[in-house]
Amino acid sequence: MADLGKMLIVICDGLGDRPAKELKGKTPLQVAKKPTMNKIAREGICGMMYPIDVGVRAGSDTSHLAILGYDPYKLYTGRGPYEAAGVGLEVRGGDVALRCNFSTVDDNLVVEDRRAGRIKERTDEIAKALDGMEIEGVKVLFKESVEHRAVLVLRGDGLSPYITDADPHGEGRKVSEVKALKPEAELTARVVNQFVKESYRILKEHPVNRDRVSAGLPPANIVLPRGAGIVPHIPKVGDLYHIKGAAITGIALVKGVCRVAGLDIIEVKGATGGLDTNMMAKAEAVVKALDNYDLVFLNIKAPDICGHDGNAGEKVKVIERIDAALAHILNNANQNYVMALTADHTTPVSVKDHTGDAVPLSIRGEGVRKDAVRTFDEIACARGGLGTILGKNLLPLLLQLTARSEKFGS
Amino acid sequence: MADLGKMLIVICDGLGDRPAKELKGKTPLQVAKKPTMNKIAREGICGMMYPIDVGVRAGSDTSHLAILGYDPYKLYTGRGPYEAAGVGLEVRGGDVALRCNFSTVDDNLVVEDRRAGRIKERTDEIAKALDGMEIEGVKVLFKESVEHRAVLVLRGDGLSPYITDADPHGEGRKVSEVKALKPEAELTARVVNQFVKESYRILKEHPVNRDRVSAGLPPANIVLPRGAGIVPHIPKVGDLYHIKGAAITGIALVKGVCRVAGLDIIEVKGATGGLDTNMMAKAEAVVKALDNYDLVFLNIKAPDICGHDGNAGEKVKVIERIDAALAHILNNANQNYVMALTADHTTPVSVKDHTGDAVPLSIRGEGVRKDAVRTFDEIACARGGLGTILGKNLLPLLLQLTARSEKFGS
Repeated sequence: MADLGKMLIVICDGLGDRPAKELKGKTPLQVAKKPTMNKIAREGICGMMYPIDVGVRAGSDTSHLAILGYDPYKLYTGRGPYEAAGVGLEVRGGDVALRCNFSTVDDNLVVEDRRAGRIKERTDEIAKALDGMEIEGVKVLFKESVEHRAVLVLRGDGLSPYITDADPHGEGRKVSEVKALKPEAELTARVVNQFVKESYRILKEHPVNRDRVSAGLPPANIVLPRGAGIVPHIPKVGDLYHIKGAAITGIALVKGVCRVAGLDIIEVKGATGGLDTNMMAKAEAVVKALDNYDLVFLNIKAPDICGHDGNAGEKVKVIERIDAALAHILNNANQNYVMALTADHTTPVSVKDHTGDAVPLSIRGEGVRKDAVRTFDEIACARGGLGTILGKNLLPLLLQLTARSEKFGS
Repeated sequence: MADLGKMLIVICDGLGDRPAKELKGKTPLQVAKKPTMNKIAREGICGMMYPIDVGVRAGSDTSHLAILGYDPYKLYTGRGPYEAAGVGLEVRGGDVALRCNFSTVDDNLVVEDRRAGRIKERTDEIAKALDGMEIEGVKVLFKESVEHRAVLVLRGDGLSPYITDADPHGEGRKVSEVKALKPEAELTARVVNQFVKESYRILKEHPVNRDRVSAGLPPANIVLPRGAGIVPHIPKVGDLYHIKGAAITGIALVKGVCRVAGLDIIEVKGATGGLDTNMMAKAEAVVKALDNYDLVFLNIKAPDICGHDGNAGEKVKVIERIDAALAHILNNANQNYVMALTADHTTPVSVKDHTGDAVPLSIRGEGVRKDAVRTFDEIACARGGLGTILGKNLLPLLLQLTARSEKFGS
């Protein structure tokens, strides 16, 4: 077969949209000036993609799992594992992971502030005080994430994600006792309850909190876990397809999915996952990564933020900035590569949340059957040569275009 | 519902292609003069078809199974059963079948020539000497195929296809001892080892080999089996859909799949499965078969050969010859029939092997919803009214067009 090419998947997070009133019935993609995206569409084969299934409102985690070739219906039990992997904890198949908040409780364990005054500083110090304990033979890993957020990982035999939250999800409420939702989760529930108790015992006297109280700030005197999920036992993308893959993304959740899938995470200075992200730095990182990896996975979060904010004008601007970053990749990549430009879900500015609409897709590179589509948007791509595919179809298409798939049969 | 019509499936093997440099970025189908294919597209409903699944590189055997309505992921364990059925052995569900070479070994069972000098003649005589033995209660069927090839079928209780090859896949290597890959395959491994031993005992003194040695030719003094597969227990197409079906094809592998599926094989003089095949004779056989069968299945191998050879010009010519054969069918068929024109996979001349791209499809006949597609090729058909389907969808579409399906529900 032909020489193996590289694969580049560009996920513009939440890029898909619906006709917006403030854009006279057009989508942000239709309004934006995006010569590079249009070039990719013109030189490629286009279509629409339902990240998970037709009409399913995909999360970023489940969508990225599907696009990386996994079945989220089989292996996704919650966001915890991907958050944990995203902050750099080395999760293993069978670990149970939970998202946590540093919170403020009173002496009766009633929540005064679920986010401990949106604590930003020295959370690493208090996290360290909780990391590494062992409860009923279960190893406890704990790490701070952004601001008041943290992750808890339990490792041991007989764990289960089917437990309720310790977080009462509201102020003025008492910390909830974690309960098993299935009999096999009794141990896990006990361990989490014990961890919460220990967190209060250790944190209420912790120097960081003494300083906070002195400064008139609410102490981060307890940890409240929620959203338990089990880390799936899954083969890595690299082992499945004999490829070396890397991901470039500013957001922990996507980092986590990519890490669980076995991709290397390339950290880029200024890639914040926010509107202020340095897109050019990410584009340059892609150019370099293509030299060293078979699969490069780029996520740009900004369009999703504009969608959630309901800000059509900003979404148009963000698309134009992404377009410039894509131009940098096209102009500077040294490798022969096949590129897929798409999104992980639709986040319409009119809805401010993810919807189940399809997202546009264009695949450009050697061997693709160019179709008549000349612009990259939700309407034009629907007439493309790829028709409508699912997220799980994307990687097989790229693998066969780069001559990396095995033939089934003879 | 309407009168029952006949169904004709024309599989142009490996017909699908990608833009080819030597055709100025067009595919062979786009370049070829093919008025009949275009007429079929114009008068029919078009679409694209992934024979097995999106992006999956299909073999001819697995693809034909899918197009005949079976799930190759569930029932395909190897090529052996279809090769065996293809050379005319009456395989049954549960039989284990292996592909074999007549080979030449020295006194120490080291392979000197894996193909016994590409022996062509009198292989029927040596095959007969090995056919019909019984080893540990397992019945052994053996038959020669083309040139140095042969097939071995084991019939009995407790057989399994999970064994290694006796063929060491290289000269200068000793014949491999067959090993069980799963405990339940121990008997099968012993039987194959014993068969190989017997083949050497019987063949080394065989008159055909004495003559070969006298003539300075390497003797076919051993049989080396490989690629064990189990014959699936499957209902025949005829029983599933209450139809009488026939297949016309020059290649043993496809004959085998069709025979396992319960289609009658119509032998056509001059249908070689090669570039020299007599396409007009096959077309005439189709015309006659439509009088006697509900489903006629035609495979034309030639485009695949051109794809594997990387010969774009020849592929164009082959398409034009197929077009003339199709004209003969259209002009001479006496029956009311629905015809599907498609391929079993894409074999681009630029790749010289099967890829996972979709193949074009056009369905013409009474009742179809004509779309705007006016030419039959990989780009035009993608805009057709059928959209993109999978191989397993084809037969249900034809069955309902000819009023042969049962209603599900009321």
